[in-house]
Amino acid sequence: MPMQGHFTETLARHIALTKSVAIAPAARQASARILADSVGVTVGGARSDLAEPLSRYLAPHWGKGSCRVLGSRQRTTPEMAALANGAFGAALDFDDVFSSMPAHPSVLVLAVALACAGERRVSGADLMDAHVIGLEVGDRMGKLLTLQHYNQGFHATGTLGIFSAVAALARLQRLTPKQVQTALGLACSMASGLQCNFGTMAKPLLSGLAARSAVQAVRLAVCGLSAADDAIEGKAGFLAAFGSAEHGPDRLDNWGRSWAICEPGVSLRKFACYNANQRGMQAILELRALLDFDATTLDRLACRMPLGGMQGAIHPIPTTGLQAKFSLQYALAAGVLDGRFGLDTFSDAAVSRPEIASLLQRIDAHESEACRGDDPDFEKRTPGARGFVEVQAWTRDGRSASVRVDIPPGHPRRPLNWDELRDKFIDCARHGGVTSDKAATVFARLQDLENCADLEAALAPLQPDE
Amino acid sequence: MPMQGHFTETLARHIALTKSVAIAPAARQASARILADSVGVTVGGARSDLAEPLSRYLAPHWGKGSCRVLGSRQRTTPEMAALANGAFGAALDFDDVFSSMPAHPSVLVLAVALACAGERRVSGADLMDAHVIGLEVGDRMGKLLTLQHYNQGFHATGTLGIFSAVAALARLQRLTPKQVQTALGLACSMASGLQCNFGTMAKPLLSGLAARSAVQAVRLAVCGLSAADDAIEGKAGFLAAFGSAEHGPDRLDNWGRSWAICEPGVSLRKFACYNANQRGMQAILELRALLDFDATTLDRLACRMPLGGMQGAIHPIPTTGLQAKFSLQYALAAGVLDGRFGLDTFSDAAVSRPEIASLLQRIDAHESEACRGDDPDFEKRTPGARGFVEVQAWTRDGRSASVRVDIPPGHPRRPLNWDELRDKFIDCARHGGVTSDKAATVFARLQDLENCADLEAALAPLQPDE
Repeated sequence: MPMQGHFTETLARHIALTKSVAIAPAARQASARILADSVGVTVGGARSDLAEPLSRYLAPHWGKGSCRVLGSRQRTTPEMAALANGAFGAALDFDDVFSSMPAHPSVLVLAVALACAGERRVSGADLMDAHVIGLEVGDRMGKLLTLQHYNQGFHATGTLGIFSAVAALARLQRLTPKQVQTALGLACSMASGLQCNFGTMAKPLLSGLAARSAVQAVRLAVCGLSAADDAIEGKAGFLAAFGSAEHGPDRLDNWGRSWAICEPGVSLRKFACYNANQRGMQAILELRALLDFDATTLDRLACRMPLGGMQGAIHPIPTTGLQAKFSLQYALAAGVLDGRFGLDTFSDAAVSRPEIASLLQRIDAHESEACRGDDPDFEKRTPGARGFVEVQAWTRDGRSASVRVDIPPGHPRRPLNWDELRDKFIDCARHGGVTSDKAATVFARLQDLENCADLEAALAPLQPDE
Repeated sequence: MPMQGHFTETLARHIALTKSVAIAPAARQASARILADSVGVTVGGARSDLAEPLSRYLAPHWGKGSCRVLGSRQRTTPEMAALANGAFGAALDFDDVFSSMPAHPSVLVLAVALACAGERRVSGADLMDAHVIGLEVGDRMGKLLTLQHYNQGFHATGTLGIFSAVAALARLQRLTPKQVQTALGLACSMASGLQCNFGTMAKPLLSGLAARSAVQAVRLAVCGLSAADDAIEGKAGFLAAFGSAEHGPDRLDNWGRSWAICEPGVSLRKFACYNANQRGMQAILELRALLDFDATTLDRLACRMPLGGMQGAIHPIPTTGLQAKFSLQYALAAGVLDGRFGLDTFSDAAVSRPEIASLLQRIDAHESEACRGDDPDFEKRTPGARGFVEVQAWTRDGRSASVRVDIPPGHPRRPLNWDELRDKFIDCARHGGVTSDKAATVFARLQDLENCADLEAALAPLQPDE
């Protein structure tokens, strides 16, 4: 279906001109929860596997600007701060999941906000507006491209996340509609990202690159560079090049009637790995409680996934912690062995335990038509949200049971409560070298983000001690 | 056709391990011509329309590194130097044309070489090797993706040029094969660029972004980041996402038997605008000589182009100099009015002359099946190289003539000679504020690039005087 009208121009006007009062309280509440979670996973990511090599790269840029890198004592340029915070935000594979893109946009929004906050005051209320609008833009772009874009191999956190980040930063820097339009046009020439790099450091890096590119697009637009007025919908534009032929209608006339951050909403992950593995992992925990087995008493285990549910689970026999985040089989094995999941589940050391190798031989995970359920929109849903997951265990003493999980923990219809979010936040912060006390202080401020006058100051305690 | 074997790994080994002696003298001679031309257009681009807004963006980064920006007195970080030099290199739309990508890769190679030369000595001979190999990589990637990639709207200078630039820089920095493989994998997640931005500053900016991304990919790989081993050919990889289903065989076993820089070779543009307009412009000059008309004595003019030949000529009635570079109709009008083409042809002032508006009403340009010729590979050729172009003029006093041009000036089969290249170089340098004397000195050094011990020193005079 060919695009009608002036999509890029209209979208830019909405980004620039939507009034703060038009954003529903429920949307702001959702935003506060997601942003608090995004801060936590970013601090934790600053001590992930990615940290050492990325810090080596960033070293020549430390001290060359005033923008904060969470979980670090360093400051740098807006571009490099966005790169660092965006990459660290994704490094634990613990960041938010926004199914309608599908992507992990909120750590990008946080990263560009930190790039901005180094140079001008950003309030919590402004950040919430920017976040709600940024995710709305991501939702609209994702719907236009349809899931075919993702299925083709593109990683939408890069290819579409840049638009969320541009929109958010454009709000924070109060760009004019015309400047936003130009920034969107520049972003069209910067959008990139592939799924092939799942399970490597290039995967979280992509979030950093997208945030960095958003900073550049906005700053270049402000500096007076030009771009096509119709870069999204026009000839040889974003939709033509990246989109499938089937892209949906370009309706923006319902802008502001509801907010995508509320419906379909955003998942906050319970487990620090690939989103589509979360239901199987939840099932293992429930199954162990039900059947009371462990690594020695388990005979074998079968995990049935919906068709397409293993699309990103590309490492059946992982050899590194990063690969393990994209291994359904490993996640199940670790659940059997440990009876719990934590950030330490996905370390290189945990992966190389001999018990894991033994368990992997007794675990079968496969996609099955039987896990379709009765959802007429099955094909339109992401791997982690379609159909259901069923895990069955057989013990050596001849018992068997199975557990079916339809909705993953952390999903908008099965949300983590504030206590669970605080625990996750403090775990992440401690992983990043920040004490629980400091983390709890910051978390309390983020729970009341609406009344936070200065993001930069609110986050100041999130530095490692030494 | 599915990819076989280990394309990314094999390509990386060729990039890292090809011996200098394996590069034919003809390839090195071609490289010297192209690089001299690339230096010239980059210096000229430093005073293009792009210069002022881009310099505003770059201002906070000046002085933060040791890498030179041609046509400027500034030094900056490797990343920002690559961005600036790459963007200025493309800003006049006067850079090289490599039909098998199709793209303009050589200013990107120059830009990454300058980013490298700020931190370690780069010799002319090393640069030539890096250039020959960089273009070879671009040729191979272009053939894999086929012209369908370009026809879909992607701008291959961005999406494929990054691989040429990564290959060249990897040579200059003497990366190991494994590091090159990682850098290629990272580049897969960074590749971007759309044609919709033709005729805006975002078009040349893209060359800068691609060069900057190549610098990052190489440096991140050296710092120890990881990426997929099979990012080009693997599942959800570059070819799967960006390629058409028809991509060609993945043969690298003939590497080094001939070099793409020689065959099919590289075009160096005679006129500072969209490559596919060059044949029509050459025809106008020949037609004026033949029929002796000018803007007042011309009645009307028709330009027949091969099918697809106007793909990038997207501004029939341009209002800016940048748009005029992508306007076939304007180029013809300016040729009629001025009887010559120069850098000044594509200024905002030149575009807004009232005589141009009058001429545009008397000029018809269209694609025609009649301009196919007898080339069995017609569809596989780029807009500027397929079929032929025919321009016909009718004078007010009833005379008429037509001129057909098959091969554009500057094409490998109709090359500019060294004198023409020197004239172009000095014109560009003067446009960039560099005196003819200094330009001539540098040009002589570049003619003997093989024996240049230090690129950085050789280019030192290319600064504006004030």
